[in-house]
Amino acid sequence: MLLWFLFLESRVMRRIRLIVSYDGTNYCGWQKQPNGITIEEVLNSAISKLTGEEIEVIGASRTDSGVHAYGNVAVFDTNARMAADKFAFAINQRLPDDIRIQYSEEVEAGWHPRKNDCIKTYTYRILNRKIDIPTERLYAHFCYFNLDVEKMREASGYFIGTHDFTSFCSQKSQASSPVRTIFSLEILQDEDMITIVVRGDGFLYNMIRIIAGTLIKVGMGVYPPSYITEIMKARDRKFAGQTMPAKGLTLVEIEYI
Amino acid sequence: MLLWFLFLESRVMRRIRLIVSYDGTNYCGWQKQPNGITIEEVLNSAISKLTGEEIEVIGASRTDSGVHAYGNVAVFDTNARMAADKFAFAINQRLPDDIRIQYSEEVEAGWHPRKNDCIKTYTYRILNRKIDIPTERLYAHFCYFNLDVEKMREASGYFIGTHDFTSFCSQKSQASSPVRTIFSLEILQDEDMITIVVRGDGFLYNMIRIIAGTLIKVGMGVYPPSYITEIMKARDRKFAGQTMPAKGLTLVEIEYI
Repeated sequence: MLLWFLFLESRVMRRIRLIVSYDGTNYCGWQKQPNGITIEEVLNSAISKLTGEEIEVIGASRTDSGVHAYGNVAVFDTNARMAADKFAFAINQRLPDDIRIQYSEEVEAGWHPRKNDCIKTYTYRILNRKIDIPTERLYAHFCYFNLDVEKMREASGYFIGTHDFTSFCSQKSQASSPVRTIFSLEILQDEDMITIVVRGDGFLYNMIRIIAGTLIKVGMGVYPPSYITEIMKARDRKFAGQTMPAKGLTLVEIEYI
Repeated sequence: MLLWFLFLESRVMRRIRLIVSYDGTNYCGWQKQPNGITIEEVLNSAISKLTGEEIEVIGASRTDSGVHAYGNVAVFDTNARMAADKFAFAINQRLPDDIRIQYSEEVEAGWHPRKNDCIKTYTYRILNRKIDIPTERLYAHFCYFNLDVEKMREASGYFIGTHDFTSFCSQKSQASSPVRTIFSLEILQDEDMITIVVRGDGFLYNMIRIIAGTLIKVGMGVYPPSYITEIMKARDRKFAGQTMPAKGLTLVEIEYI
């Protein structure tokens, strides 16, 4: 009788949600792929070792190669009998030091990190000076040309709201709709570090890196701030600025609403 | 006649001073040594390639393996005919991206970076939270235990002034005198990042990393702030805290006075 009860209990499948931070430098992005090691694979392997099951995490943001995160979100299902908040520490013991679970908790069985409304916050960091700083080289895009931050701030206003972002999207995108909502886009300055902080309901492929490249052109005086409206109207990738390097981009937070 | 003039001019030896920044992660410190690659070697090789001479730089601070710098200072002598301020850019083209010359200028022939009075500024960064942040792991010491910053600030006052720092010095030190002057020691806090900023006329071997380890013990409540005086009086390395890891330490600036 007692054995039967234990057997039943050990089969209570739970869904665990993780807040995942990583230094993207040494990874080919989040999603499993044939050409290199990815965050997803390393997580699957660490959690499988911990629980003895074959774990496949589901991630919220499938960040690109080289992109960093403080707060990506992932879930996995497990029969393991461990307090939900202890998974973070236990998984960390099996992870390399460039990936860390910040938090773990139980969520409802059906909860899916990509099928729930959310606000995503990303930063794009630009080091604007004449010579790069070695300790920033992996976490900021180095820009030699003097940027006019006030002009960049003026331009940032045109991105806010619900727009068709076709011009700010890589042609490789497979999204069904190019319409997205940006809730805020701030440009912070701390000495020679310029940080673009953008909050939205989701972003198209390479969208923030293209927005960063476009804002850099505004800062350099190549585009006037109001030209953002023209670029948007054109619905043509060629009108916007370059796709900036992945290393400047960090997924800061995903808030489910 | 013209040829003779060129020959003479090409032999005007100049001393060039460099401000050198580096990410110490991948180096066995500044000074040449048999077991691995050092900043000094990489600089010698890059400048030698540029000028065609056999260059040996003289560094101000022979930072340890893993220590970072924004503003170490080095000099070299050259016959190369290039505007002094252009050396920075020309050398950078021959350096790996984890070393960058920030500035170059001509100084007097006899000027020596270790034989002139100076104020050195170092920072020691401590990330004080429950779980490490991957993008900070190479540039800050991760401390799990909750630190009382106010107590650390109280303790910092005892270091200021001219003292015998024998207790805060690795036994490997070869310094002729253990007396040093600390002009200021501030403890800054930005969310969970605690930064010790220390300015002094020079530091003994591992001195800042031992001061950091001692301040962490104060922050943890192991030592009361006033115990710093006892440690100093003891003139015994065993009384002070642990030597903290190199990666938290950055040589920020050397001001010659």
